[in-house]
Amino acid sequence: MIYLTRRETFNAAHRLFRPEYTDEKNFEIFGKCSNPNWHGHNYTLYVTVKGELNPQTGMVINLKMLSRIIKEKIIEKVDHKNLNTEVDFMQGKMASTEMICIAIWDELERPIREMGAQLHCIRVEETENNFVEFFG
Amino acid sequence: MIYLTRRETFNAAHRLFRPEYTDEKNFEIFGKCSNPNWHGHNYTLYVTVKGELNPQTGMVINLKMLSRIIKEKIIEKVDHKNLNTEVDFMQGKMASTEMICIAIWDELERPIREMGAQLHCIRVEETENNFVEFFG
Amino acid sequence: MIYLTRRETFNAAHRLFRPEYTDEKNFEIFGKCSNPNWHGHNYTLYVTVKGELNPQTGMVINLKMLSRIIKEKIIEKVDHKNLNTEVDFMQGKMASTEMICIAIWDELERPIREMGAQLHCIRVEETENNFVEFFG
Amino acid sequence: MIYLTRRETFNAAHRLFRPEYTDEKNFEIFGKCSNPNWHGHNYTLYVTVKGELNPQTGMVINLKMLSRIIKEKIIEKVDHKNLNTEVDFMQGKMASTEMICIAIWDELERPIREMGAQLHCIRVEETENNFVEFFG
Amino acid sequence: MIYLTRRETFNAAHRLFRPEYTDEKNFEIFGKCSNPNWHGHNYTLYVTVKGELNPQTGMVINLKMLSRIIKEKIIEKVDHKNLNTEVDFMQGKMASTEMICIAIWDELERPIREMGAQLHCIRVEETENNFVEFFG
Amino acid sequence: MIYLTRRETFNAAHRLFRPEYTDEKNFEIFGKCSNPNWHGHNYTLYVTVKGELNPQTGMVINLKMLSRIIKEKIIEKVDHKNLNTEVDFMQGKMASTEMICIAIWDELERPIREMGAQLHCIRVEETENNFVEFFG
Repeated sequence: MIYLTRRETFNAAHRLFRPEYTDEKNFEIFGKCSNPNWHGHNYTLYVTVKGELNPQTGMVINLKMLSRIIKEKIIEKVDHKNLNTEVDFMQGKMASTEMICIAIWDELERPIREMGAQLHCIRVEETENNFVEFFG
Repeated sequence: MIYLTRRETFNAAHRLFRPEYTDEKNFEIFGKCSNPNWHGHNYTLYVTVKGELNPQTGMVINLKMLSRIIKEKIIEKVDHKNLNTEVDFMQGKMASTEMICIAIWDELERPIREMGAQLHCIRVEETENNFVEFFG
Repeated sequence: MIYLTRRETFNAAHRLFRPEYTDEKNFEIFGKCSNPNWHGHNYTLYVTVKGELNPQTGMVINLKMLSRIIKEKIIEKVDHKNLNTEVDFMQGKMASTEMICIAIWDELERPIREMGAQLHCIRVEETENNFVEFFG
Repeated sequence: MIYLTRRETFNAAHRLFRPEYTDEKNFEIFGKCSNPNWHGHNYTLYVTVKGELNPQTGMVINLKMLSRIIKEKIIEKVDHKNLNTEVDFMQGKMASTEMICIAIWDELERPIREMGAQLHCIRVEETENNFVEFFG
Repeated sequence: MIYLTRRETFNAAHRLFRPEYTDEKNFEIFGKCSNPNWHGHNYTLYVTVKGELNPQTGMVINLKMLSRIIKEKIIEKVDHKNLNTEVDFMQGKMASTEMICIAIWDELERPIREMGAQLHCIRVEETENNFVEFFG
Repeated sequence: MIYLTRRETFNAAHRLFRPEYTDEKNFEIFGKCSNPNWHGHNYTLYVTVKGELNPQTGMVINLKMLSRIIKEKIIEKVDHKNLNTEVDFMQGKMASTEMICIAIWDELERPIREMGAQLHCIRVEETENNFVEFFG
């Protein structure tokens, strides 16, 4: 078993809030992240897959194909977008780093399985000081 | 003459567009950055001042005071904010990295002069791949 | 189960030595790190907690509260301090990265449990080339 | 049990290809990495060992000795070398990041065991966007 | 006048040597970099342009076009290539970081001028420890 | 004219204070940096030299020799040392980043001139947030 990680980046707007709360209550719970006029981040995404080595190629998975899947399923949908309002797989979800991380797992788990590997970990970094990991 | 640089970070939403253009024309000129629903970045700001060494302290400027001025004049106004709609010193300006950089220069030039040093350079990094510098 | 990591930094002096050894023997075992006149580092601390998602907030733990606890319990006690002589939770311990890592675990395990999450990992980086992880 | 990681770097040339394939077929499978005239990378190597704390030293392993073993067994053999043609422990193997990672494990597992610790993980970063981990 | 920098990366093989020297003499002068079997690097390229702000766009130059020119004129020619034998603009030149830096300047100076800006600096980083800058 | 930069790192203890001041007054002026029990940093040093290209080597200066001079004249004297009490070229000086930067310039200016190049800039980074540059 060997683990391969691909790093991609995207820039997006988001806001943390619950629509049924007042702005004051949202600020109390979510702080500056509840700003109704949005703010944003340079997100860094690490996708880790695991699998057996392919004896022909010496690789666990074709890295270029992995990168293409991540770009097609995730980056094109979230880059330069509003995570709260424009991303299909985030509809109805809180745009927290945790929820983004789990939603990306749900999008990538199957396509990576179909490539013959297993998704091991999704890691989303919101800033240099905060990141979230999900292992399924 | 010695140069001292302080690094600070902030997260903000922005959009590149001209209100008199259609969405199509804005997309043609500004690309994905014209998304009407906003996107955002982790901006990194470097403020470089220059001056003579203070023989008592061995420093060009009190770093804690420099950091406080940057936080008060810039970071508190832009962090977790929308650069197009919420920042007083960006009113009526394109929210490009270039304009942000010049606007920050204009905000900091005088307070730093009043501290007895000279502002030398403002550098704003939008992503790890793009940054802008302004020397006045 | 989802994992959230917060990064904080601190600067401190330390020395590796055993008081019952001569300077020569300390140098033989601990090398340059045994310098009796101290040296120091910019330490980077990563605190990883794990827990279930709070369905109301979409978060595992309030990040601002986590940061506050880390600052109050650790950073304020170690930043710009001498790890051998000034830090209560390091009294009588070797100021190695390993011991610092374990001591920080011991300080944070309970407060994080009381916040409703579980401490998963403490990681302390002494330089860009060396780091230690402890999982309890 | 505590985990200690040492980071080292090396620069090397490599090529991904199977000698029995035509250049066209190699390009189809390995892309630009199959360039017959070589290309190269700044590789970053992380060696993680685990063990009990030595109560005398407060350390899991002597870091200087660990660094010396990594340099002697790995860095001196791969730095400024051609991974396909010049490295004894890569003979007859595909010079993929995965194979390099496993081969380094095989070289270091025993010497680290003989130092009284256990090799836990080898991580090889080929670029800032790709890395591989092997846990034995 | 405002300065805009774009960062791009490429991976390439190279060797430092003079063909009229013996391998011994090349090793004496160029050290490990003279390895006849090649080695390589992850190069980082920073292209800095300067110009007046375009009042319509608030930008000094269209960043996407700048990136496209750098990719077309430089990255496609050097990425996953052998700098000594495969790159047209390096023919007959020593593949040192200095010569690469100057050669990239020569390739980009005119296309950037034709975009209405001025090339200010080419910076090439060979490793995290070494880089070269050329200002024309 | 081409510019070449070499990066080196060192770890050291220091303290900012004036011996004729009380601890209270030192704290008032220098803040936490005045801690009488020392603290320390991982300093990063960038040495930039400039010169004409040597047509034989395609290099401005022999990088290995430059690195050796920096190690011999600076790193060996400051690494794992106390900058206030143990470093000859810091005797009687405030151990501020500014003074360290100027003192390193004074140590390196002549040896680099004797190598046939010119020292252009010394840059000392105290933390990821603060750095100082001196151009002579």
